[in-house]
Amino acid sequence: MRFEAPESLSEQIAQHIGQRIVVRDLKPGERIQELKVAGELNVSRGSVREALLILERRHLIEIYPRRGAVVSELTESSVNALYDIYIDLLCMLGRKVLERWSGSELGDFMGQIHEFREVIDALNSSADDAAERVIEAGFGVVQYAYRLVENPFLQETLENFRPAISRTYYAALENFRGEVAETAVFFRQLADAALNNDAAQLQQAIWDFGEHQRKQVLSILKEENT
Amino acid sequence: MRFEAPESLSEQIAQHIGQRIVVRDLKPGERIQELKVAGELNVSRGSVREALLILERRHLIEIYPRRGAVVSELTESSVNALYDIYIDLLCMLGRKVLERWSGSELGDFMGQIHEFREVIDALNSSADDAAERVIEAGFGVVQYAYRLVENPFLQETLENFRPAISRTYYAALENFRGEVAETAVFFRQLADAALNNDAAQLQQAIWDFGEHQRKQVLSILKEENT
Repeated sequence: MRFEAPESLSEQIAQHIGQRIVVRDLKPGERIQELKVAGELNVSRGSVREALLILERRHLIEIYPRRGAVVSELTESSVNALYDIYIDLLCMLGRKVLERWSGSELGDFMGQIHEFREVIDALNSSADDAAERVIEAGFGVVQYAYRLVENPFLQETLENFRPAISRTYYAALENFRGEVAETAVFFRQLADAALNNDAAQLQQAIWDFGEHQRKQVLSILKEENT
Repeated sequence: MRFEAPESLSEQIAQHIGQRIVVRDLKPGERIQELKVAGELNVSRGSVREALLILERRHLIEIYPRRGAVVSELTESSVNALYDIYIDLLCMLGRKVLERWSGSELGDFMGQIHEFREVIDALNSSADDAAERVIEAGFGVVQYAYRLVENPFLQETLENFRPAISRTYYAALENFRGEVAETAVFFRQLADAALNNDAAQLQQAIWDFGEHQRKQVLSILKEENT
């Protein structure tokens, strides 16, 4: 029994519930009942509680002493707070990449730039899976940056925000299809700034794109509420 | 039984173990055994596991699938990674305070400045509990800034880093007694920058002080290892 790696079970439960929150199958404000989930998934209540702690860490739920777990609200002020810190941390990541960037990493980096370009080219030709490919490419860039920066605290903090950011992306996904061109521009700016080794330009590109996304999410949220 | 607020029990266990890690009663690299802790504290193994998840979130332990929980290492690179993100987030907090600062908050803020000044004056006269009072005052300022900024994500992220930062402070505490003057200078710079409503000056003050602390912690760490 010791080899069943209980963290892994609670992680699986967390990912299952987390995905339901991201695609908004579980709605903001909805209660998550430990006993009900434990019954549905045929797991122990303890494992569900651990999963809920993981989801709280990932900013998808809030746990209250008496009410239990509730899916985090998606409001103008929560979206603003989320994007404020996420954009700041992405800027830090970009800055650190350039601070640490040396000759030996240049080769890998050029490979990454090449991948960006391929994604951008694909976007211009096909439109069907463009959005998914852009999101995938975006996370690919972030993953690559983690390896260069080697800051486990920054990586963990950003990764913990990823599901909450994905939830807002998901809300924006329908509109996103028309946004591919804008995203392609961002990727080019990012690549240019990195090639120029220009930290200010890199941070500006991240900031502009983050602000663009934020506005889009907020406008969709506003539409939903009216 | 439903009213026993199980989150609160695991939180208590987390704070108990966390404090032992902060004061280095539990050493970096040391294993924390679920069963042993459950027996010692006379609590269920499930509660201990929840406490460990909370401590992982607070960057004090790492949980590995087979080895279980291990107290986080305190190395040059982990201290650097920690201070990199902590300083960045504090700068963001300071920047946001000034962005949001309006006339109505000015009164409260002046009260806070007044408290800083009292602490600083106390530092010059008495030396015995000066270090503790400085640390307390420092966290008081951060708490105050949370209220002005109203970003729960930033607050939670900074609070999750506090125990790990406290652990490094604790390591530096003996040397810290000679550092009161330096800290007083920082408090004055912070107050001046806020009064001038000068974001660049505020960030520079935070950055300078953070870098000063980082160097101190690193030099003590180096001494310990030789």
